[in-house]
Amino acid sequence: MTALALYNGLPTQTVPSTNRAVAYGDGLFETIKVETGRAQFLPLHLRRLIRDCARLDIALDEIALRSEIAQLLSQRESGVLKIIVMRESFARGYFAPPHSPSARLLQFFPQVFVDDERSHLGVAVRLCRQQLSEQPSLAGIKHLNRLEQVLARSEWSETAIAEGFMFDRAGRLIEGTMSNVFLVRANKLYTPRLHRCGVAGVMREIILTRLAPELIPAIETDLLPIDIAQADDVFICNSLIGIWPVRKIECLQKTVGDVTLALQQKLTQLIADEAR
Amino acid sequence: MTALALYNGLPTQTVPSTNRAVAYGDGLFETIKVETGRAQFLPLHLRRLIRDCARLDIALDEIALRSEIAQLLSQRESGVLKIIVMRESFARGYFAPPHSPSARLLQFFPQVFVDDERSHLGVAVRLCRQQLSEQPSLAGIKHLNRLEQVLARSEWSETAIAEGFMFDRAGRLIEGTMSNVFLVRANKLYTPRLHRCGVAGVMREIILTRLAPELIPAIETDLLPIDIAQADDVFICNSLIGIWPVRKIECLQKTVGDVTLALQQKLTQLIADEAR
Repeated sequence: MTALALYNGLPTQTVPSTNRAVAYGDGLFETIKVETGRAQFLPLHLRRLIRDCARLDIALDEIALRSEIAQLLSQRESGVLKIIVMRESFARGYFAPPHSPSARLLQFFPQVFVDDERSHLGVAVRLCRQQLSEQPSLAGIKHLNRLEQVLARSEWSETAIAEGFMFDRAGRLIEGTMSNVFLVRANKLYTPRLHRCGVAGVMREIILTRLAPELIPAIETDLLPIDIAQADDVFICNSLIGIWPVRKIECLQKTVGDVTLALQQKLTQLIADEAR
Repeated sequence: MTALALYNGLPTQTVPSTNRAVAYGDGLFETIKVETGRAQFLPLHLRRLIRDCARLDIALDEIALRSEIAQLLSQRESGVLKIIVMRESFARGYFAPPHSPSARLLQFFPQVFVDDERSHLGVAVRLCRQQLSEQPSLAGIKHLNRLEQVLARSEWSETAIAEGFMFDRAGRLIEGTMSNVFLVRANKLYTPRLHRCGVAGVMREIILTRLAPELIPAIETDLLPIDIAQADDVFICNSLIGIWPVRKIECLQKTVGDVTLALQQKLTQLIADEAR
């Protein structure tokens, strides 16, 4: 994996090893689709980044960031722009001064976006065993502590499965490993509330505030597996894929197993013996 | 902050910017005290590192690691050895192949250890507002997703306060931001269970398995704030500080406030009026 990268405006393939992103995942990121040099929905991405930097009390040089984005995208290529904002290193240990300055790592991964049949035909998803922990202090933020997603994504390697749905420890549907989830039922649109955990994606916000209002009532609420089962439509979304219909959710059909059969037979026998 | 550092055995001050430690905090670390070139309790640290790499399905080149430790400590200096193991970068996105190889970052921070009066006189600690989320998949592991500790440590900057106690979302005492906690009561030693969250420190293990057995029965259990209040002794520990007594826990003494007083007076008046 190679990427064109700028660290605080300077071309580089490395970051300082004392960086707090390396040590603690102390930072945030944005993943933005770029078509011929144009970053899609850039104002929304920057607004979220600025808001979430404030939540983590990280100072961000917005002017430098905007100038670096322009610099990195000047080749007018298509691909993925990833912005990582990292709290600057201080002394060894967790403490950092209030409103600490941050370093900016911008990476550009060239990619040609073709009409993706998954956006028409839909995708298959699985249900992840790895659960999300509840942490209101971090809920909604696209921060760099992503081990839960890494563990969830390690549960499958079949390329036929596009995404995995993740639940919190109370069994509520929260999101996909790299997407947000929406359900349609009886002409209403539902998506999980993200005040306990999950990432509040920019595409999710676009759907809730820009696309749905003239089409269908949209509701943020708690959703359970039964709500997935009873949904008319299901789709996932993020800034790179846009909206992908979900065609198939990991199947729960079973056959009659040998152990069940053997136990049934033994129970029948036991009941017969007891009745004698 | 400067440190002598090796990345996969090569001297450097940087790591690749595509590293999964930078992107996701996808890795683990150890912090080890070094006196004149000798890493204290190194076998215990390496055993934990190897065990927790296995839990995250990260492959570790132990032979290379041991050789790099020897290389970095060959100057026979005193200080802090930090080992960071990071899952190697793969394609963009969360997926990594099973049992992925890892990169090793070793940092050495020179420090002269003097007899610390805090280990004799004890320290003051506070109670943190930031709670720990429960995540059994990651509980006990000294991994790189440390935003909860960063947020907790940002709650105070007074140097007179040495540590902050952290609780889980059910109110159970778990650990300090950078230490484990023990309570003594009625000739028994208690420390929080770490199967839901927290870091299972090497010094904690040494106390439980090597120091306590010939001295006092030691019990891992769920502990609440009332248990801190009722404890005879409290101490914190980690590999760098050893054992520090806790002398003072954030004071909860209050004075009689103006609002309380005013409300009392109004209530007295109301009761008198009603009785008329």
